[in-house]
Amino acid sequence: MAVEQLSEEERDSWLRALPKWLSCRDGAAIERKFEFSDFSEAFSFMTRVAMIAETRDHHPEWFNVYNRVEITLTTHDAGGLSLRDVKMARKIDALLA
Amino acid sequence: MAVEQLSEEERDSWLRALPKWLSCRDGAAIERKFEFSDFSEAFSFMTRVAMIAETRDHHPEWFNVYNRVEITLTTHDAGGLSLRDVKMARKIDALLA
Repeated sequence: MAVEQLSEEERDSWLRALPKWLSCRDGAAIERKFEFSDFSEAFSFMTRVAMIAETRDHHPEWFNVYNRVEITLTTHDAGGLSLRDVKMARKIDALLA
Repeated sequence: MAVEQLSEEERDSWLRALPKWLSCRDGAAIERKFEFSDFSEAFSFMTRVAMIAETRDHHPEWFNVYNRVEITLTTHDAGGLSLRDVKMARKIDALLA
């Protein structure tokens, strides 16, 4: 199934619903930075995100150092942001809700 | 216990014993890139590294996307590379030996 890139209008609309995520790479990706109390907490969160990623077969680009995690979502197959990223962002947000 | 930065001589000597790690940040860190068959394998490896990191209370800076993992080791307390990084690199290498 082909994954379609969001139009600019759709992207802006979705981003308003995801206030903790920032548009980056000229609108081709979104990113969110997280801060936890320590590495154990940060990596536990990453493990939960990894489960979501594997289940959805949609994987983040991410960076971690100690208590900080930075997640970037984009859809390589679509050459930019797709609904898959938006859904993934919502799932990630829900982990911390 | 204070952690001492390695001298240039010590660093060069240790790096010869860690051929898969490259010096970076003007000698203040070392990095190694890993490639696995898929995300599941990459994240399993990361989980094992996380256990080592937590046990030693020495944490990597690392990046992952799908099957790729990039690990950078440095000792912030020492303002550069220390024996803790070397030992950690050896432990990580041993996971894949």
